[in-house]
Amino acid sequence: MLTTLAGRYQRDLYESVLPFWMKHSVDREHGGFFTCLDRDGTLYDDRKYVWLNGRQVWMLSKLYNTVEKREDWIEAARLGAGFLRRHGRDPQGRVYFALQRDGTPAAYQRKPYGAVFMMLGLLEYSKATGDTAARTEAEELFWRIREWIADPRLMGRLAFPGPKVSQLADIMVVTSMALELAAADPGDARYPEILGECIDAALRHCEPNREILIENVGADGKFLTDTPEGRLFSPGHAVEVCWFLLHALRYRPDAARQEKVLRILENSMLFGWDEDHGGLHYFLDIQGRPPLQLEAPMKLWWPHTEALYSLILAYTLTGESKWLQWLERTHDYTYRTFPDPEYGEWFGYCDREGKITHSLKGNNYKGCFHVPRALWMCIDAIERYGSGN
Amino acid sequence: MLTTLAGRYQRDLYESVLPFWMKHSVDREHGGFFTCLDRDGTLYDDRKYVWLNGRQVWMLSKLYNTVEKREDWIEAARLGAGFLRRHGRDPQGRVYFALQRDGTPAAYQRKPYGAVFMMLGLLEYSKATGDTAARTEAEELFWRIREWIADPRLMGRLAFPGPKVSQLADIMVVTSMALELAAADPGDARYPEILGECIDAALRHCEPNREILIENVGADGKFLTDTPEGRLFSPGHAVEVCWFLLHALRYRPDAARQEKVLRILENSMLFGWDEDHGGLHYFLDIQGRPPLQLEAPMKLWWPHTEALYSLILAYTLTGESKWLQWLERTHDYTYRTFPDPEYGEWFGYCDREGKITHSLKGNNYKGCFHVPRALWMCIDAIERYGSGN
Repeated sequence: MLTTLAGRYQRDLYESVLPFWMKHSVDREHGGFFTCLDRDGTLYDDRKYVWLNGRQVWMLSKLYNTVEKREDWIEAARLGAGFLRRHGRDPQGRVYFALQRDGTPAAYQRKPYGAVFMMLGLLEYSKATGDTAARTEAEELFWRIREWIADPRLMGRLAFPGPKVSQLADIMVVTSMALELAAADPGDARYPEILGECIDAALRHCEPNREILIENVGADGKFLTDTPEGRLFSPGHAVEVCWFLLHALRYRPDAARQEKVLRILENSMLFGWDEDHGGLHYFLDIQGRPPLQLEAPMKLWWPHTEALYSLILAYTLTGESKWLQWLERTHDYTYRTFPDPEYGEWFGYCDREGKITHSLKGNNYKGCFHVPRALWMCIDAIERYGSGN
Repeated sequence: MLTTLAGRYQRDLYESVLPFWMKHSVDREHGGFFTCLDRDGTLYDDRKYVWLNGRQVWMLSKLYNTVEKREDWIEAARLGAGFLRRHGRDPQGRVYFALQRDGTPAAYQRKPYGAVFMMLGLLEYSKATGDTAARTEAEELFWRIREWIADPRLMGRLAFPGPKVSQLADIMVVTSMALELAAADPGDARYPEILGECIDAALRHCEPNREILIENVGADGKFLTDTPEGRLFSPGHAVEVCWFLLHALRYRPDAARQEKVLRILENSMLFGWDEDHGGLHYFLDIQGRPPLQLEAPMKLWWPHTEALYSLILAYTLTGESKWLQWLERTHDYTYRTFPDPEYGEWFGYCDREGKITHSLKGNNYKGCFHVPRALWMCIDAIERYGSGN
């Protein structure tokens, strides 16, 4: 089964997904990447979203670094990295959310994610090219992002009375950056240290009754289940964090914690799966209350890409057949719902029953990232497992 | 047909909708109104949303002023008005978006709508009670809101390069406030003047090919159809603005403009109606591009309440049978989709095909407002029409 899947993912990645982005997203005039692309690649908004530009620089550089030294990939990455370095930050060093096509500032988000993916893109790009200035900027960004997360007022957010909240998304992005820095600089002990803190912090999001990861808990570890935020469960997010934690545990080996993460993964799939219509719910309230998000009942592509890789990783770590059953179920749902064999790439959004609701292939939240990253990681994990590594 | 509808709306308003809110939303301990109520009225979030609190004060005071001097209505309005006046504004006079149950500040929105509905609530409450301080605060707020809309930086929004944008929502809320002030103070010529400016401004949102109102145009009158915002059509919003304009035209009579507004209403229904599944779409792109909003394909309750009243108003103004046909179609869809005869009030959200997606009756955007306002206005318009007024 795994070999068949690897072949399928290989064809999808190199014949459908990457060609779509390479053909339609690269702006050879101003640099950077368009992501608001309709089904057939038609551009419907020429703004450039910093976080998606950073993600695409990361993805193309990563493929160049790990799969094949393709000139077209690194040339596109160079157009993206240059655009981000010229236009991505304001005079105080804060990172914009959106830019006009030519790089004119268009919006802030007051969240750290633009900076996170600019950092990841520049770091991976520097590995590919030896561009030390990009590497230095990436490291500088990492330490600033840690400050911004610790004190969101530095991003222009307003502070209100009430308990300080720990957000799972913040822990995940710090984990993702520290993993890449730890790999880039194996001699620096700070990054494994931070990964240890991230594992601790993420496990404080484990809701004890169901043993799943929820989005928001008090910074003091208390659960905030009186509020919709404190009851919010995003199954895709939970399973994505699980694979980040399994990677982080390579730097802080701990068999009991690995067991726990695997139980959380299984419980997040169980509680997150829609038994009526298949697929992972987007948002759920752990007490069955109505979520405030209107899109809660929809199905999105990215929880499924993250589940595919997490399940393959869990199987390669344990050899337990239950993971293959979950993988088959998730793969079948995903491939019957999202990919578009006609124009390439995947659709991103459908209703609860699996009918596509948006014709787009990219927008301000979907770019050249979750689909190619998951396919590349799945192929890589299956190949390593097959070769005994 | 109209008489039958009026009877239906009476029963719905007084036996189902108002009892739901009077029973579940009033906080007799701290004042103010809860709105995050699940299907049966269970509270799932005890924060108080300033704009929805203002709307409920307005609605209850309006019913007290126009329908019946019911003690329970004005007593609840008093609890809401007092809560807003104690807690709704910061020391600089800006209006919060959300408060904790006890009035502790919880969030700003950097938009004017909290202030708008606080203003409308206090004004109507002052008419009911003769509370001149509430009246003074409402008028002060009106003029400040005009400044905030003219320069959103005063609300903490950041300015970016590019064309200044006129938002249909801003025009609509100024129209709504000026209408109430014009009625409250018939001797003041400033309000009819402002209503004239609002009519001009709203008609600059008329997209010439389809003759519908779109959400965003350049402040210089240019269309911004290169961007998703500049192509955005919200059918419910368009039909809501139409009835506001028809009311505003009472102060600035102009037969040609009334004709135009009625054509816009008809075209907005035509272009906004989902011929496959019935009901009004939530968001459409006028060029058929994918909207950025994930909730675009859903159906929401409030476009349908606004359509019901606009269509009745159009019929009572013209006597043309086409409006009754649209009304029948809209009424049938609305009443087969949203009301909840079991626990009262209406559901608010369903998927494109009309299946309810959220069990809630209220949240941070849905409160005691669109349903009772539309039912009250429909009943009133039908009664006036029947009596020849």
